[in-house]
Amino acid sequence: MSDLHVYDTTLRDGAQQEGLNLTASDKLAIAAHLDAMGFGFIEGGWPGANPTDTEFFARAHDELTLRGAVLAAFGATRRAGGRASEDPQVLALLDAQTPVVTLVAKSHARHVTDALRTTLDENLAMIQDTVSFLVSQGRRVFLDAEHFFDGYHMDRDYALTVVRTAAAAGAEVVALCDTNGGMLPHQVEAVVADVLAETGARLGIHAHNDTGCAVANSVAAVRAGATHVQGTVNGYGERTGNADLLTTAADLQLKLGYDLIAPEALAQALHLSHAIAEVTNIAPMGRQPYVGASAFAHKAGLHASALKVDPDLYQHIDPALVGNSMRTLVSDMAGRASIELKGRELGYDLSDDPQLLGRVVARVKELEQQGWTFDAADASFELLLRTEATGEVLHYFEEESWRILIDSASGGQDALSEATVKLQAAGRRRVATGEGNGPVNALDHALREALADAYPELAKFELTDFRVRILDADRGTDATTRVLITTSDAQNTWTTVGVAPNIVHASWVALVDSFSYGLLKAGVQPR
Amino acid sequence: MSDLHVYDTTLRDGAQQEGLNLTASDKLAIAAHLDAMGFGFIEGGWPGANPTDTEFFARAHDELTLRGAVLAAFGATRRAGGRASEDPQVLALLDAQTPVVTLVAKSHARHVTDALRTTLDENLAMIQDTVSFLVSQGRRVFLDAEHFFDGYHMDRDYALTVVRTAAAAGAEVVALCDTNGGMLPHQVEAVVADVLAETGARLGIHAHNDTGCAVANSVAAVRAGATHVQGTVNGYGERTGNADLLTTAADLQLKLGYDLIAPEALAQALHLSHAIAEVTNIAPMGRQPYVGASAFAHKAGLHASALKVDPDLYQHIDPALVGNSMRTLVSDMAGRASIELKGRELGYDLSDDPQLLGRVVARVKELEQQGWTFDAADASFELLLRTEATGEVLHYFEEESWRILIDSASGGQDALSEATVKLQAAGRRRVATGEGNGPVNALDHALREALADAYPELAKFELTDFRVRILDADRGTDATTRVLITTSDAQNTWTTVGVAPNIVHASWVALVDSFSYGLLKAGVQPR
Repeated sequence: MSDLHVYDTTLRDGAQQEGLNLTASDKLAIAAHLDAMGFGFIEGGWPGANPTDTEFFARAHDELTLRGAVLAAFGATRRAGGRASEDPQVLALLDAQTPVVTLVAKSHARHVTDALRTTLDENLAMIQDTVSFLVSQGRRVFLDAEHFFDGYHMDRDYALTVVRTAAAAGAEVVALCDTNGGMLPHQVEAVVADVLAETGARLGIHAHNDTGCAVANSVAAVRAGATHVQGTVNGYGERTGNADLLTTAADLQLKLGYDLIAPEALAQALHLSHAIAEVTNIAPMGRQPYVGASAFAHKAGLHASALKVDPDLYQHIDPALVGNSMRTLVSDMAGRASIELKGRELGYDLSDDPQLLGRVVARVKELEQQGWTFDAADASFELLLRTEATGEVLHYFEEESWRILIDSASGGQDALSEATVKLQAAGRRRVATGEGNGPVNALDHALREALADAYPELAKFELTDFRVRILDADRGTDATTRVLITTSDAQNTWTTVGVAPNIVHASWVALVDSFSYGLLKAGVQPR
Repeated sequence: MSDLHVYDTTLRDGAQQEGLNLTASDKLAIAAHLDAMGFGFIEGGWPGANPTDTEFFARAHDELTLRGAVLAAFGATRRAGGRASEDPQVLALLDAQTPVVTLVAKSHARHVTDALRTTLDENLAMIQDTVSFLVSQGRRVFLDAEHFFDGYHMDRDYALTVVRTAAAAGAEVVALCDTNGGMLPHQVEAVVADVLAETGARLGIHAHNDTGCAVANSVAAVRAGATHVQGTVNGYGERTGNADLLTTAADLQLKLGYDLIAPEALAQALHLSHAIAEVTNIAPMGRQPYVGASAFAHKAGLHASALKVDPDLYQHIDPALVGNSMRTLVSDMAGRASIELKGRELGYDLSDDPQLLGRVVARVKELEQQGWTFDAADASFELLLRTEATGEVLHYFEEESWRILIDSASGGQDALSEATVKLQAAGRRRVATGEGNGPVNALDHALREALADAYPELAKFELTDFRVRILDADRGTDATTRVLITTSDAQNTWTTVGVAPNIVHASWVALVDSFSYGLLKAGVQPR
């Protein structure tokens, strides 16, 4: 089955996602990642439809050196009543100079008459004319049969005629699109099997996730004989998104034995997912199948002891196959076994020091009682472990005091926050003040200011996420507050936690841990 | 098919999600929402396994009045070599006093020998003994057959024997669990059909999303004859999560005609999803099927004109069926209907004043753009509606300024917060200072102090809940903050919202709205 097409439409259909906006440079960067992943086809966009896509194809020609992937330009069949060879939109597809052109065409009778406002026969003529013209110009042509499944259920004969017409005109693949995303797997399987039996055309699947079944629908189509799978990285796309191509490929390859992607490339799946999330600037979803940060994370104490014995009893694949790894989460539901496992992950062997293990477990339990959580704060846990193991607390500075002032009168439209920190570092006392649009922002600025010359490494740290959880929320504003801070530098990302009745105090604790952990990992000694 | 069980495990298996930590109060709040949604069964947790779950069941008995749902306690079969009637863990299940007990049991031979470390026969005895003991004590017993699908593929006979043993001992349902989440729909369908044919037991499905197919697997199981569906709201759960129960229910009901939930309840699906996300403090996913903010959102372009002609050509269901609405992302035409409906709920008939309706819609849209949400803040919405309807803002006092000081040096163990407010009320200027263990707590105290003699009614108001959500979280401490405050007096409970870059400013806005709304409802005029 090595001729199964993996066809990525992240740059075209994925870019339809609400809040996702890609520049031509972004698209070039993503295309390079997709190529490195070993995807067979990359749909770059719709040349002529907007300036970004036009620029992408123009620059791709010079700037994009693909190692294995083939670039596809997406567009529509010619206008009703015209000729493909004279249609500006069709000619723009030729101008894009891609080996493949993917044409979208109507296959749903009511869409032809009510949306396109032409006759059923003219729609067939548009398909025939446009496909054969592009083939005559040396292009490989794929056809996206839009609204195919809905159309098939409304008028099966017409839907089949569209497939036959496209194939006869020279389309290499007819991709059946569940454009509105309303199908379920057994329906997709039945339709694909019938179309294949009736037409003999090479079929593809293009699924959306409106029933939560985009991946399952894609797998069902392949089982029924489709040999071309469309999707997007991270499931980006309009409404609920497209089929996640990484999940679909992993399911087909690791579960059903299809041969889509070289194993070394599949082992880069997590990297690809995150690299593309960096470009789109959409935070990766922790629960994403295969590549999510939580995808192989275990929390329950129930499993922890058995996890040590035989991890394969508790994971559906070896996470290394997709570049992921097993993680144990430290939580009050877990006990010694999971903390030992977590220690091992971080490079601390606690198995031969039961006393240390006991101290760490006791400390974690005590803190969790007060509202701390370590399952999302690996960095704070590692600092805690280090403190218990070495018997000393890591201090990059000696805190004297800090103070916040927030004044509604001084900030114009919004209240201005001002923070002053007083501390001792690198041999002298420092007093620094920072401003911000919130108290924690001001504190962050003041602390950086105070430490800038002692620890220039801090300049590389960036706070990338800040979460607040009110515990015992039913005590109103009198409750305990938990703050999680995520910080990144060029290489790494880490999360720390702080808990206190005062939200600013909790943030201070998490902030100080965040700086300490980052400096520790950068090999910086306290000065 | 009205006897199809909808079994929610958000409070137990959902709570295994990384970063999700629920207090007993959170669980009670979620249970009330699930009951209102018409779910048949609510699994509350594992009594005895941790203090939170034990507290939940103790309090549920007094505080939770369920209209239709049945509460289930989750636990394990008795220990190897003991007796169910003397097993403390089993007795804790009885103590929870729930009509249903759901027992997890091994059905995978290698898990019995390698993880549980007992014999295959003893595992069957544990199931037989525990089920029949609980049945003899008047409980309905459901059995979760852990790792069933993997176990079936390894040793079909033993897996079938587990099902037969449980059913013979009196288990009403045997839920087949894809514990590691590695299954695909066609596999689930084949196994369920075989088990049903071989055992005749009433079967359930418990699916995880590790292949991206949790919903499809649940649907496949029901098509094969399972009549009990487990899942969680928003797909919360360990690793990649559990089957999203709202998506699964909507697929089964709206696509395949099963009868699970009253249509009026299903039309609250979006509300349920968001209300529970507020409790868990996990940002809702825009791409979530059916209930996501983007689920029926269309980018303008290809579809725009046809959308107006016949929206049904472009959406797989009528979004109103799940409480959602169609949006086009350039010119939003949704909102009017739901705002009109909400107005009616609050006693404002907007249908005969299209201009007022238009102003309210525009104002809501403008605020939502900035991060406000009125889903969970009816009181703020009613104040907004009142402002637009009357043309005047309700002011119980004239704000001059407020100021917060937080000083780590003055608070001993914890930082002390001090707030000063300056305002005009009942004919004179007032300056008052309050202290608190956090800035908002201090502000609350100062404001009460300043207004105490002008509005003695404030003494009855109690802040009962305080929630913070960071929007644009990837901008770190520089992001926008949304605060929700819930307030109660003897009769009522209401929620208000505030949004600002500064968390204290956002809290101030919500606090002032909370006081205004409470005074308005108490019939107090500005003095």
